[in-house]
Amino acid sequence: MTAFAFDLLATDKNARRGRVTTAHGTFETPCFMATATAATVKAMTVDMVKATGAELAICNTYHLMLRPTPERVAELGGLHKFMNWQGPILTDSGGFQVMSLSGLCKMNEDGAIFQSHVDGSRHELTPERSMDIQRLLDSNITMCLDECTKNGASHEEAATSMRRSMRWAERCRKAFVRREGYGQFGIVQGSVYADLREESIKALTELDFEGFGIGGLAIGEGQEMMFNVLDFTIPHVQADKPRYMMGCGTPSDIVGSVQRGIDMFDCVMPTRSGRTGKGFIKRGSLNIRNARHARDPRPLDESCTCPTCQNYSRAYLHHLFRCEEILGAMLLTQHNLHYYQNLMKELRGAIEAGTLDDYVADFHENQALGDVAAVG
Amino acid sequence: MTAFAFDLLATDKNARRGRVTTAHGTFETPCFMATATAATVKAMTVDMVKATGAELAICNTYHLMLRPTPERVAELGGLHKFMNWQGPILTDSGGFQVMSLSGLCKMNEDGAIFQSHVDGSRHELTPERSMDIQRLLDSNITMCLDECTKNGASHEEAATSMRRSMRWAERCRKAFVRREGYGQFGIVQGSVYADLREESIKALTELDFEGFGIGGLAIGEGQEMMFNVLDFTIPHVQADKPRYMMGCGTPSDIVGSVQRGIDMFDCVMPTRSGRTGKGFIKRGSLNIRNARHARDPRPLDESCTCPTCQNYSRAYLHHLFRCEEILGAMLLTQHNLHYYQNLMKELRGAIEAGTLDDYVADFHENQALGDVAAVG
Repeated sequence: MTAFAFDLLATDKNARRGRVTTAHGTFETPCFMATATAATVKAMTVDMVKATGAELAICNTYHLMLRPTPERVAELGGLHKFMNWQGPILTDSGGFQVMSLSGLCKMNEDGAIFQSHVDGSRHELTPERSMDIQRLLDSNITMCLDECTKNGASHEEAATSMRRSMRWAERCRKAFVRREGYGQFGIVQGSVYADLREESIKALTELDFEGFGIGGLAIGEGQEMMFNVLDFTIPHVQADKPRYMMGCGTPSDIVGSVQRGIDMFDCVMPTRSGRTGKGFIKRGSLNIRNARHARDPRPLDESCTCPTCQNYSRAYLHHLFRCEEILGAMLLTQHNLHYYQNLMKELRGAIEAGTLDDYVADFHENQALGDVAAVG
Repeated sequence: MTAFAFDLLATDKNARRGRVTTAHGTFETPCFMATATAATVKAMTVDMVKATGAELAICNTYHLMLRPTPERVAELGGLHKFMNWQGPILTDSGGFQVMSLSGLCKMNEDGAIFQSHVDGSRHELTPERSMDIQRLLDSNITMCLDECTKNGASHEEAATSMRRSMRWAERCRKAFVRREGYGQFGIVQGSVYADLREESIKALTELDFEGFGIGGLAIGEGQEMMFNVLDFTIPHVQADKPRYMMGCGTPSDIVGSVQRGIDMFDCVMPTRSGRTGKGFIKRGSLNIRNARHARDPRPLDESCTCPTCQNYSRAYLHHLFRCEEILGAMLLTQHNLHYYQNLMKELRGAIEAGTLDDYVADFHENQALGDVAAVG
């Protein structure tokens, strides 16, 4: 058996280059997870996902508890077998979606009572039930159930919310079934308040989790505030455990967060954008639905080595989106995931080489260029 | 350069095993084409399509003349480059869709005037324009523009319709630009009337096309009538040219048509069914949306070697369809195309071995079994 471990391989100022080991293999950090909400990366086969370079997948407790249910997944051999993903899997706690997606959610000290957004049925999610679900799913990294304090909360609201999350973290740690090669992350809350973030980290450190989620960010506070919070939060987090910035973010958010010492990221942006027509490129982004691409024989990004850019023109992708062909979503998602994974690979390389500042300067210079001019 | 050719490699009674050579490679017959209506096989990457064993793709003149327009495709280097399909491509004439999909279609001796189903714009399709479009697309096999005589037509209606199609066939032959490795097929009409089918074949034979389409079948006449028509039609078609049964059909339709001497098939059934939840299996078919599959750990078909059946359970596919995940359509389409291609491969093998009758008997016996019992 393999112990759950985090190895710090190199640093460049506050940025870290590491490796996480799980019962289902390793992943290199900083990493960007493949978003597989309902046990599938939308519009992608597993082979296509692997080819982008993704090593860690994230699945969603809220979606899977409703359909097909964690008991069903367990009966079928767990998530790895169910979705044919042999690599490591992280699951979120379900808390964020219970509060944002479900109908009529009531929170109290025990947990949350909510209605399914699918069929209106009534469900309960407590710290203990969330741990049980994630165990049934056979997730390699279990996230604690917490309350994502909403953006704009007062110090008093944020303190009350964070302290409940810390009481839940204690219940989660108690309910977590320890298994070789499996880990559990506590989640730092405290909104934009330095004293609360510090208090939260102290509580989680005492519970000795295998890693830290940074919660309550990338929810509308803006990049400047987000980076400020990281600046006063991260120095208090112990260095020998991985740090996961939940739900973040744009390429620029990720670059800045890596500079501040974040190791793990997840975001629906590359997959969701891939289905709606937004493509990420070295020079920023583009909307493939725009008529300027209709006769453009060039790939999305001349510098990109993904199968979409190697084989298809902007004109073809534009045609697929105009005709609402599924292949359009497949090819653009493939490109976007490749873009994100390539960004992570380059960030890892720059940290190893000790040249992260130069890399980041180049990154912003390229992004500022904007898309190439349309064909004549 | 490579000449367009049909080589008859073996026969078993009326069934034929052949090979068609084009400027973009060869394909083995009897064959089933990959349906790529709007220059994409719906919900499939080109690699996935190739892996099913498909060698010939069929694209649609009607759809492509509206979007992105044949002139645009030509400017971008032709269909092969546009859609990244390096193998042979056949295009239909657009006639069938003009009559079935467009609004306000008026037919006269010159051709058809119709409204786009996309934006209501007015278009004209004549024999000459259809040939021009297919040349601009760079199709390897150009189909003549014809009128698909509707099911239930009287002898007089069928005669009038067929004779116009034969006058159009003459105009098509004249308008076709001959190129090395490219061919043009005439289309046999005449509804269910033996004398009209014979008259049609005679007219087409004089025009010396590179192959024959069999039109006006698989449009609701029923399998018995369809096979009857083939029985009295095929003996009049010259043996040294490929025969393409347009828009056909179910696995059973294909098996019976191969026995009667058909070489080429196309149908939306495996791809469309793949998006709506119907799966083709050795023992008939199944609807993956059915609750009986919800906890079934078995693959769609225990005997199938496709990537879907090798890696995924019925329970997982059921989950994807319930959640309306795109991957469900992708995986089931992949399976269905593999099923059809495997059927063709087995038919080719049986003809080579001279054991087609035995193969067909086994085929029907298996189909009659019906799906396996649900899990307990």
